[in-house]
Amino acid sequence: MKLKLLLLTVTLLLLRGPSYAQMPALERVEPAFWWTGMKNPKLQLVIHGDKISERTVKLVYPGVQLMQVHKVQNPNYLFLDLTVSATAKPGAFPITFEKAGTKALSFKYELKPRDSSPNRIQGVTSKDFVYLIMPDRFANGDKTNDVVKGMQEKSLNRDTLITRHGGDLQGIIDHLDYLQDLGVTTLWINPVLENDQPKYSYHGYANTENYKIDRRFGTNELYKKLVDVCHKRGMKVIKDLVHNHVGNQHWLIRDMPAPDWVHEWPQFTRTSYKDQVLFDPYAAQEDKKRMTDGWFDTHMPDLNQQNPFVRNYITQSHIWWIEYAGLDGFRLDTYAYNDADYMAEWGKAIKSEYPQFTFFGETWVQGIPNQVFFTQGNTVNRGFDTQLQGVTDFQTYWAIIEAMNGKFGWNDGVTKLYTTLASDYQYQDPTRNVVFLDNHDLSRFYSLVNEDVAKYKSAIAWLLTTRGIPQFYYGAEILMKNLANPDGKVREDFKGGWPGDKVNKFTATGRTPQENEVFNYVRKLANYRKQNPVLQTGKLMQYVPENGIYVYFRYNSDKTVMIVMNTSEKEETVTLNRFSERMGNYTQGQNIINDETLSLKDNLKVPAKTTLVLELKSNKINN
Amino acid sequence: MKLKLLLLTVTLLLLRGPSYAQMPALERVEPAFWWTGMKNPKLQLVIHGDKISERTVKLVYPGVQLMQVHKVQNPNYLFLDLTVSATAKPGAFPITFEKAGTKALSFKYELKPRDSSPNRIQGVTSKDFVYLIMPDRFANGDKTNDVVKGMQEKSLNRDTLITRHGGDLQGIIDHLDYLQDLGVTTLWINPVLENDQPKYSYHGYANTENYKIDRRFGTNELYKKLVDVCHKRGMKVIKDLVHNHVGNQHWLIRDMPAPDWVHEWPQFTRTSYKDQVLFDPYAAQEDKKRMTDGWFDTHMPDLNQQNPFVRNYITQSHIWWIEYAGLDGFRLDTYAYNDADYMAEWGKAIKSEYPQFTFFGETWVQGIPNQVFFTQGNTVNRGFDTQLQGVTDFQTYWAIIEAMNGKFGWNDGVTKLYTTLASDYQYQDPTRNVVFLDNHDLSRFYSLVNEDVAKYKSAIAWLLTTRGIPQFYYGAEILMKNLANPDGKVREDFKGGWPGDKVNKFTATGRTPQENEVFNYVRKLANYRKQNPVLQTGKLMQYVPENGIYVYFRYNSDKTVMIVMNTSEKEETVTLNRFSERMGNYTQGQNIINDETLSLKDNLKVPAKTTLVLELKSNKINN
Repeated sequence: MKLKLLLLTVTLLLLRGPSYAQMPALERVEPAFWWTGMKNPKLQLVIHGDKISERTVKLVYPGVQLMQVHKVQNPNYLFLDLTVSATAKPGAFPITFEKAGTKALSFKYELKPRDSSPNRIQGVTSKDFVYLIMPDRFANGDKTNDVVKGMQEKSLNRDTLITRHGGDLQGIIDHLDYLQDLGVTTLWINPVLENDQPKYSYHGYANTENYKIDRRFGTNELYKKLVDVCHKRGMKVIKDLVHNHVGNQHWLIRDMPAPDWVHEWPQFTRTSYKDQVLFDPYAAQEDKKRMTDGWFDTHMPDLNQQNPFVRNYITQSHIWWIEYAGLDGFRLDTYAYNDADYMAEWGKAIKSEYPQFTFFGETWVQGIPNQVFFTQGNTVNRGFDTQLQGVTDFQTYWAIIEAMNGKFGWNDGVTKLYTTLASDYQYQDPTRNVVFLDNHDLSRFYSLVNEDVAKYKSAIAWLLTTRGIPQFYYGAEILMKNLANPDGKVREDFKGGWPGDKVNKFTATGRTPQENEVFNYVRKLANYRKQNPVLQTGKLMQYVPENGIYVYFRYNSDKTVMIVMNTSEKEETVTLNRFSERMGNYTQGQNIINDETLSLKDNLKVPAKTTLVLELKSNKINN
Repeated sequence: MKLKLLLLTVTLLLLRGPSYAQMPALERVEPAFWWTGMKNPKLQLVIHGDKISERTVKLVYPGVQLMQVHKVQNPNYLFLDLTVSATAKPGAFPITFEKAGTKALSFKYELKPRDSSPNRIQGVTSKDFVYLIMPDRFANGDKTNDVVKGMQEKSLNRDTLITRHGGDLQGIIDHLDYLQDLGVTTLWINPVLENDQPKYSYHGYANTENYKIDRRFGTNELYKKLVDVCHKRGMKVIKDLVHNHVGNQHWLIRDMPAPDWVHEWPQFTRTSYKDQVLFDPYAAQEDKKRMTDGWFDTHMPDLNQQNPFVRNYITQSHIWWIEYAGLDGFRLDTYAYNDADYMAEWGKAIKSEYPQFTFFGETWVQGIPNQVFFTQGNTVNRGFDTQLQGVTDFQTYWAIIEAMNGKFGWNDGVTKLYTTLASDYQYQDPTRNVVFLDNHDLSRFYSLVNEDVAKYKSAIAWLLTTRGIPQFYYGAEILMKNLANPDGKVREDFKGGWPGDKVNKFTATGRTPQENEVFNYVRKLANYRKQNPVLQTGKLMQYVPENGIYVYFRYNSDKTVMIVMNTSEKEETVTLNRFSERMGNYTQGQNIINDETLSLKDNLKVPAKTTLVLELKSNKINN
């Protein structure tokens, strides 16, 4: 509590202080470089320097025009509107800032050629299998960056969960073989932009720079290299973004362009976290304002996305990262807390520049209407389309928990999973939703099922065979456990990721037999999925669950896979004639985990708490 | 069980019997009369008589044309397509059926003038307060019709719930003063068409005639009189319809026009009752067929609504009843079990003839997407609009139960009520939904809240102040109780409705003090609602519940009513400044139940388990 009060006081002082920081005459230009040949010719530069607004701006370069120079309340800022026409050639040119009686300042601005290498910016689809990594906790590939001089937080203590542990980008690069062998195609890495905050910097959700990788994780160049090597392997990378807020140590917060850069409140006001007010046709303005403009946390100022300079700044930095690193997707943190009109404008800007790019929003909400509201195709209560291609599918998440732990009934147990998917009629395209069993904010699923390996494997089979983009959380394959509440130990280190670790779970010999059982299960299924389009893009057909048994199929013109989930505590026999529409003349099923062939003549025995994944075969082909 | 098997056997024999019944040469013509000046000039007559199909049909009347004569598989039927043009005048004319060598048969067909009396066919809106009556159980106004000679069921036993008790239409007419005094504006009466079934005929949901009131309830003329006297009082009447099925003793089932008049199955197959298969984009045909074509019960054959003669027959009989009786609305039983395309066609036909008419469907489903799917404006997975104006709002029903009985939490307790209403963004017009606390199929709400009068009144206050068309179930105002399961005693008699009843709950002296407390509460609130448009059509604004307290407002340019629901087990104090958007300069609130004036300066004390309904006042106006 005391810490929070202190942070609040510091924040308010920063927000309210009438005097602006003293600094070099030309502190920075952002973005520091750009590209020729972008579809959108517009570019807005932020210029930061001591009383820079007193200076006159000049630039001369063929194809580049300075359209407008904006001054804001803080004299240390200028915002330059440039157009970079299609005829502009790559090259560099000075931008000068002149003032009578003083030496002119100059910044060498570079326009780079766009990188047209293959496999850049591919987009992420249901063909992929996403693996979420918290970089501070996965692997430490470079001990020299564990503590960086001049940065505010200097903690390095693997014994607590709130300090930094030293994991980094090099650690990820070092384990790509492991991940690819597991069947992973895509990495989603928690935010890696600089978080030069005094505390809790490890999680990355309070960035203090928009164009700079945190040095404790690596460099911009190393980040680009990570994406490049992934692409060379046929893998992809998703960047985790926060539009809604930044850290209170962000350079633009420490010396704000104007008081309306963030949402100010008479006293610290937390968001209500109530998504309902956004779609409620009966909501009060007061409730809406608190949800959208309230702060996510004391040290996370809520950006004012109605300020056009804020909008440009955020959007441009995201386009910069796609273009710079060749990214494949974005995950949008705390999506619901943003201004909806800005997020739609942002979505359009991204799609216009990169039609093949993918982004999905975190919609940690309870209820199908709550989640659907945010997705592309919905214009209700707004008058514009959200443009949000996909969401983190919390509704199937709640449902798979109920399927595994609930008692089967008319609405309960696995019926909830079935009904949740039936409600997909509400989405423009539900296959763009990201399905998951856990993430960095949630309890480890293995703990949610009370460390019951049978149930855990059953849920994993669902994850890798249902519709959507499946996402795994690091260590789920080696039975990492613990609850988000109360102990928060869901961000523990991946054992073996640190030099000197006593055990190394990256290798079969370092894993227990049970860990290997689950690791091999995931590996087998994920690789089958990788090799078989039927599980990636095949159509889905599901049947009303009966007796705790949920049966569904994925099928295309080539193959049919039958999935039989028995959520009951005992072996059950399933009568098969009900499924003739999909089973047709198939008489056998190959269990893709153990390659055994099962007869599918009249009925099928399914062990307790087990999901069978069967590629259907007919006798003829098999004999 | 044995009874069911017997019924099944009887049914199957009826369905499969290759020989058709012997009957008079001209048994019946339906509808037996029609009207001139209808918007739709088309009319299809069903002619039933012994080998009637062997005869030639003739008719001559100015403006009436016989367009087509359809024969079907059963020679005892003809279907005549007529057009009644705008120029046709009221009058009668013979329709003759000729066959060489036999005497011609003749039916005198009448075209009546349309009744243009005022107050007919008004529609039911959120201005109304609907009272649902099970006519066999409300009041017995005519003992002469308690048992009717020639009808199959002759039971009359008020000691069991499955036999007839003798209530009737005259009993309703006799108590209109009581109902109007209570604040009721509209009666919804359970089906009163003839149910000449051997058992369970009292509930009316297995009709055996489409054009005839059950003689144990009264006559067609008495039904029309009931509607007329209601209209004269400023009240309205809703007829309860079943499209999906009829009783197996229906004359059209006993001698079916063709085997495809109903959905036949190799063996009796019950519907799955699973609404999900209707909207599930992944549903199997097998599951869909079972839901839609399976029988609702053994003695209720499922009509084949893909048969065009079935469609015409049902739709025309409904239009006939609106025109004949001047009805205001329909309640559509088992809505989800019908063929969606037929119900859309039906809806269009009704709206086209009677734009001001109201109908709402029974959607006994769990989940907002499940319910929304059926409502007007939804075209997903179908390609056509359902045309369904409103639904029985089971989602707010589940929510008010949770609000009263659940523990307050992030998603639970009264939060569920708030969230359910917030999801109204999914409806084209949620104010057309019918809200309720109980009905003839559900447990009495008083029992659901464990006979807690405070909670019960709190829920009633919500019912009469939230959006939508509020609906009460007979006897709810006098604390009638019991659960739907297991004892089914939710259809008990209204005490005092039968001559000789020892107590008469229709009078204050016959009611206990507690019954009077609740009766007067409903009466006060319903009459305030009747007199104050603000609670009928005023806008709704609701606030995120906090601490178990749910605050919302109804407001128009004239008045503002503040509703404060305290679901907590103890008195709570509500700080009021949060509601300034609606409270403005109001400083007082008049409790509309007891007319006390409360100060609304800074905060408000709300007793445990209580909903306050306050008309806001400012000091100036009040002094």
